[in-house]
Amino acid sequence: MNIDGRPYRTIFPDADGISVQVIDQTRLPFAFELTRLASLDDAAVAIRTMVVRGAPLIGVTAAYGMALAMRADASDGGIDHAAATLAATRPTAINLRWALDHVAALLRAAPERDRASIAFAEAGRIADEDVASCRAIGQHGGRLLADIHRKKGRPINVLTHCNAGWLATVDWGTAIAPIYAAHEAGVPVHVFVDETRPRNQGAALTAFELNGHGVPHTVIADNAGGHLMQHGGIDLCIVGSDRTTASGDVCNKIGTYLKALAAHDNGVPFYAALPFSTIDWTLDDGVRDIPIEERDGREVTHLTGRLADGGFATIEVVSPGSPVANPAFDVTPARLVTGIITERGVARADAEGLLGLYPERRRAA
Amino acid sequence: MNIDGRPYRTIFPDADGISVQVIDQTRLPFAFELTRLASLDDAAVAIRTMVVRGAPLIGVTAAYGMALAMRADASDGGIDHAAATLAATRPTAINLRWALDHVAALLRAAPERDRASIAFAEAGRIADEDVASCRAIGQHGGRLLADIHRKKGRPINVLTHCNAGWLATVDWGTAIAPIYAAHEAGVPVHVFVDETRPRNQGAALTAFELNGHGVPHTVIADNAGGHLMQHGGIDLCIVGSDRTTASGDVCNKIGTYLKALAAHDNGVPFYAALPFSTIDWTLDDGVRDIPIEERDGREVTHLTGRLADGGFATIEVVSPGSPVANPAFDVTPARLVTGIITERGVARADAEGLLGLYPERRRAA
Repeated sequence: MNIDGRPYRTIFPDADGISVQVIDQTRLPFAFELTRLASLDDAAVAIRTMVVRGAPLIGVTAAYGMALAMRADASDGGIDHAAATLAATRPTAINLRWALDHVAALLRAAPERDRASIAFAEAGRIADEDVASCRAIGQHGGRLLADIHRKKGRPINVLTHCNAGWLATVDWGTAIAPIYAAHEAGVPVHVFVDETRPRNQGAALTAFELNGHGVPHTVIADNAGGHLMQHGGIDLCIVGSDRTTASGDVCNKIGTYLKALAAHDNGVPFYAALPFSTIDWTLDDGVRDIPIEERDGREVTHLTGRLADGGFATIEVVSPGSPVANPAFDVTPARLVTGIITERGVARADAEGLLGLYPERRRAA
Repeated sequence: MNIDGRPYRTIFPDADGISVQVIDQTRLPFAFELTRLASLDDAAVAIRTMVVRGAPLIGVTAAYGMALAMRADASDGGIDHAAATLAATRPTAINLRWALDHVAALLRAAPERDRASIAFAEAGRIADEDVASCRAIGQHGGRLLADIHRKKGRPINVLTHCNAGWLATVDWGTAIAPIYAAHEAGVPVHVFVDETRPRNQGAALTAFELNGHGVPHTVIADNAGGHLMQHGGIDLCIVGSDRTTASGDVCNKIGTYLKALAAHDNGVPFYAALPFSTIDWTLDDGVRDIPIEERDGREVTHLTGRLADGGFATIEVVSPGSPVANPAFDVTPARLVTGIITERGVARADAEGLLGLYPERRRAA
């Protein structure tokens, strides 16, 4: 989507034809900088330190990481080492493992000398597929927004949590794609953006990208969404997902579950928008079975932001000496999810709903 | 309670016998400073800028504010002006209006020359009454915690939101009083402290006071509580209240409602602890009728904290140019509240439950 009127993707091949460029998301919203990834380690560090983040973008970056690794060591051992290194960066995102398994299998079947170029081409193909997939999610979800607008006869308010916009993918986004699609179709949409502590992806990234594309929005503390829903201020919630079970349980950024509870309590439709690669067909009970990443407590105790003089500073905000816990994701049970929007359409959040969109999985089961 | 082993109250008469000293809560947790309030304006500014905060402490500060005002103008007009000035500082807290109405009525019945000393003495009496009331809340609530510990046979985990500890009152606190009482009775209690964006009263104040008194605790982002409850990590939630309806609806810091929903969804008991002065007997529908203060968006966009070099800085954390909304409270419907703990005991969160504790209100109705 656009930044200052110029279209960007979050990851794209560098002019050298060997490395890739990514938008450094740790510098947003105050600075827009591109960073070059030229090695396996560059890719792993970029994922781990959240220079790139968002389940779909992590998957694409991992695929490019495999390609970068092949330039240094295209042996079978090199494939294993690269896949293991990249898999260890973020434990929750299923797309990461999907991309690694997919690329690794392709490479093992190819001669060593071709592996680097095959992997690079395949990563590009996955990136393009992600764009097409997100665009399709936008079309399907955008129709939901248009329907609500038609029924209510006024601008509609959508709440979203974290960043599942184009910055979380290669372009368009997942949860925000329907908002872009509706906005471009002339549906008046206003977005309430959860700040999304502790890393503030909503305040920093979702607000940045909605600003960049001219979509009306308001940033709120994560605590505020329930109150807004009690007072009719939200017509629809849309979130992304880092992993979705075959039964429709949605694992997403910590705090998503609380918004789903409030939506349910107030009769507000709650949707998760995600590409097929986010679905983990092996799991049925998300709360029980999805591993939840525990991140560094420093993400809670310290914040980095811009000073009045334009410089940057990191400040401590928690009482010194107090221990901190920092689980990064939670699981919203399918019973609280109105529907799941994928590149194939909108499904009920249950096994039958998802199999209806992906009948080939029925044959696989 | 204690800070560095020395007992404090949050507000107390200055040695001059005319003014009062308060702990400047905007400087916590990194600096402990006392501030002198010597005039009506000092008191009003202290309440509005949250040098003092917490419904009970606001009430006591307002009572002292009336006394300080009487030294400058003890006329009937002076009473009206002081009450109106103080009432305008925070719209949601019912204790504020209770204290103002109470002191104003007392003063109108007294000769002008006695009004300053009467008001000062009455403010002191209200402060002592608040301490006794909070101590009683601690005793009643502490028994609940001891019961849960006895049943579970292991240390218990309590989640609290915002600061309803001794810093929100004169001493002991409301929601935290039962925790102090249990802790002092030898019940092993660990507290999960919600950070409580946007003002971070949990991370800054509750963590500070639990640290000061040696109570084990862990600070978490507001988003994390639902996940902890899904995994059995919370045995009980206790929050304070800024206003409670006669029907048991609990108005408290924004985000409380989301925790109550999660507690209800996971079978975790959810209590509100509050003194009688918090109950608004004139209201039955909290979501509809309690006015919710909308505070400055800068509380969301900017944070102040400590730099690595020990200095302080204010940083901007929201994408520049994005609008912000900042409702300060929400209302948790009585159906989500397991019980209400007051200085008289523990009641069901409904009209009959509260009237059972306050039968004199039944006669008044």
